[in-house]
Amino acid sequence: MTTIRLLSDAEIDAIPLAREVFADIRAFRKSDVVNNFWRALANDPPQLQRIWLQVKTIMGTEGELSSLTRELIYIAVSIANGCTYCIHSHTAAARAKGMTDGQHAEMLAVVGLAAQTNAIVTGMQVPVDDMFDVSRQRP
Amino acid sequence: MTTIRLLSDAEIDAIPLAREVFADIRAFRKSDVVNNFWRALANDPPQLQRIWLQVKTIMGTEGELSSLTRELIYIAVSIANGCTYCIHSHTAAARAKGMTDGQHAEMLAVVGLAAQTNAIVTGMQVPVDDMFDVSRQRP
Amino acid sequence: MTTIRLLSDAEIDAIPLAREVFADIRAFRKSDVVNNFWRALANDPPQLQRIWLQVKTIMGTEGELSSLTRELIYIAVSIANGCTYCIHSHTAAARAKGMTDGQHAEMLAVVGLAAQTNAIVTGMQVPVDDMFDVSRQRP
Amino acid sequence: MTTIRLLSDAEIDAIPLAREVFADIRAFRKSDVVNNFWRALANDPPQLQRIWLQVKTIMGTEGELSSLTRELIYIAVSIANGCTYCIHSHTAAARAKGMTDGQHAEMLAVVGLAAQTNAIVTGMQVPVDDMFDVSRQRP
Amino acid sequence: MTTIRLLSDAEIDAIPLAREVFADIRAFRKSDVVNNFWRALANDPPQLQRIWLQVKTIMGTEGELSSLTRELIYIAVSIANGCTYCIHSHTAAARAKGMTDGQHAEMLAVVGLAAQTNAIVTGMQVPVDDMFDVSRQRP
Amino acid sequence: MTTIRLLSDAEIDAIPLAREVFADIRAFRKSDVVNNFWRALANDPPQLQRIWLQVKTIMGTEGELSSLTRELIYIAVSIANGCTYCIHSHTAAARAKGMTDGQHAEMLAVVGLAAQTNAIVTGMQVPVDDMFDVSRQRP
Repeated sequence: MTTIRLLSDAEIDAIPLAREVFADIRAFRKSDVVNNFWRALANDPPQLQRIWLQVKTIMGTEGELSSLTRELIYIAVSIANGCTYCIHSHTAAARAKGMTDGQHAEMLAVVGLAAQTNAIVTGMQVPVDDMFDVSRQRP
Repeated sequence: MTTIRLLSDAEIDAIPLAREVFADIRAFRKSDVVNNFWRALANDPPQLQRIWLQVKTIMGTEGELSSLTRELIYIAVSIANGCTYCIHSHTAAARAKGMTDGQHAEMLAVVGLAAQTNAIVTGMQVPVDDMFDVSRQRP
Repeated sequence: MTTIRLLSDAEIDAIPLAREVFADIRAFRKSDVVNNFWRALANDPPQLQRIWLQVKTIMGTEGELSSLTRELIYIAVSIANGCTYCIHSHTAAARAKGMTDGQHAEMLAVVGLAAQTNAIVTGMQVPVDDMFDVSRQRP
Repeated sequence: MTTIRLLSDAEIDAIPLAREVFADIRAFRKSDVVNNFWRALANDPPQLQRIWLQVKTIMGTEGELSSLTRELIYIAVSIANGCTYCIHSHTAAARAKGMTDGQHAEMLAVVGLAAQTNAIVTGMQVPVDDMFDVSRQRP
Repeated sequence: MTTIRLLSDAEIDAIPLAREVFADIRAFRKSDVVNNFWRALANDPPQLQRIWLQVKTIMGTEGELSSLTRELIYIAVSIANGCTYCIHSHTAAARAKGMTDGQHAEMLAVVGLAAQTNAIVTGMQVPVDDMFDVSRQRP
Repeated sequence: MTTIRLLSDAEIDAIPLAREVFADIRAFRKSDVVNNFWRALANDPPQLQRIWLQVKTIMGTEGELSSLTRELIYIAVSIANGCTYCIHSHTAAARAKGMTDGQHAEMLAVVGLAAQTNAIVTGMQVPVDDMFDVSRQRP
């Protein structure tokens, strides 16, 4: 059950801006399949375009972090926010980018440890040490 | 203001298990400084030991993910959970492990994008595509 | 699968306080249908009454914000908290109060942008500007 | 304490893309003051531009929801995500757009009630009623 | 810095409903001191009353859970939601109700473990076992 | 749909460390049934062991808090984090440890009230009272 309709290819084709974005998604990903997220977003074509341009730029281009590292960070945030859809789609994306079972397991272990220490630190209300001050570390 | 006292070196020295863990922290990190998190945790010495062993194993050993990648994932989770202390301490740790300004910026951009799409997907209640099913992807 | 039973109309009728609250829900909403939330809450009749009185007062009366604006805020919080049930029930309520597709789309865009900037600000630990201090703004 | 430096006007002026965005912020807002969020974001000029364009479009243009309603939704999400900076900056923005004390109080009451019912529904794991299915409601 | 003014005793006295609630808080708690939460809430007297009646009923009366157990649950939720004020005020309340250092430490350990396993389960998207179905467990 | 396979008893038996942990789980719980969480975790046997040892120690041993109180705290955190699996498994565990319907209802009421006041306090950005300072309360 969704709160918004998923648009079919025929419906997308009838909306010029959505059609253009979908064509770019297909060309960029070299695949005809467009997953449900984009079919839901297409109800708001300018928003569809804004989100796609960000995803393409932030996740899809060369950068200082590897493409796989960026996917792992994406999954970690999606877990912390409890987004089932995003966990599935980005775990699949990470596997497609070569994530091994071992890397997946390490990511999960780090996410779990961070959640644990986040909670304990917050419960104890530990003050930040002066030595972590960025203005002290970098001249 | 904390909800628990931060133990001084003299107090740590008087608790055998805490003293042992602190010695291991100092030896492992090759530094005499032990930050506030551990001084707060030391109020519960067995918990201090449990957390330290996990941090040492999960964050401090060789693995399939680089040590820096693990720190970036840690920061990402800490941001999503809003843990000020953890954000500062692990951003400092990532810098100590060589994180560049560009890598920091990319991580922040991914975290922001993930948070944005997490919220939008959740608001639209998009169903997970069958193609993301792990049992289909891996024979 | 629930952690608590949903009470039927017959069971509600057998609990005086629950029966009274259900009658008020039906009268106030001018509808015989009472949704699952209240049937679950009815396991604790005084809590059923406390929650209903709040919902009736905060969401159902005239106020300085329109009834639709209040529903949009409710949905936004429910998205941020990842409450599937609440997202569905309050999106339906907002539509019943006249929410257009365009308003729904704008709300989702604002929720997504807020989640994104929330995460980035938290990651950068930006200090609050003095100019936002309420004591400076209002004499 | 931040994890990133806040750039001064002189530093902004030395980065062409940042200078351009800051000029647009000042022109759009008809004010010379640019708050800390943008000075932190300016460490990553393309991200500064991406965020500003979204804020300008989603929050600053005419829409089907009033500008004030959008600010109230922004505050609600920021509260749910625990973003101190965002709560202060958008509460100030809402006041600048005419939010009354009564509207502020109503928003807070709705946010609190939503958080309460979100938690209770989640704890009871209430199944979504068929009647909330969007495909049933809209022909 | 707050987003709302904290009302002084003189201001409270000038608002009949607020004055009445403050008198009840003082009488119920057998203390003249009223902490900042209530001074902020007093900007919306009916909401002040609604929240106080809930706190008095849910936290302050005899129940099947001890008063201390209820405080521990309150702290646990406040940690998960990252509410600094609530963590401090309810940790103080728990101490006033007899919480020992050992009980505090155990609560923190449980909160940390729950946060850790919550994250890992969510990352693995583990399906709920049939054996946890409440309808199977209770005739 | 999971992001990781659930291992069968035959697969567990083929991994020495996993087999050993499963044997301990069965012995400790005096039951042959091992629920899905552990079958998913078994993909990373050292992590399986680390989590089991924590669960056994923190949840399964004598302590200053009753075993039931610890389960209630666990459920409360799982609700706040929106972990469906954990809510079901620990609600079942609490019932197995004697949780009454009345205790369940009180826990849910406290969790809801805490979530409500957490949100309102955060929205008002109430400063912590000096009187909650732990260093003042305890000599």
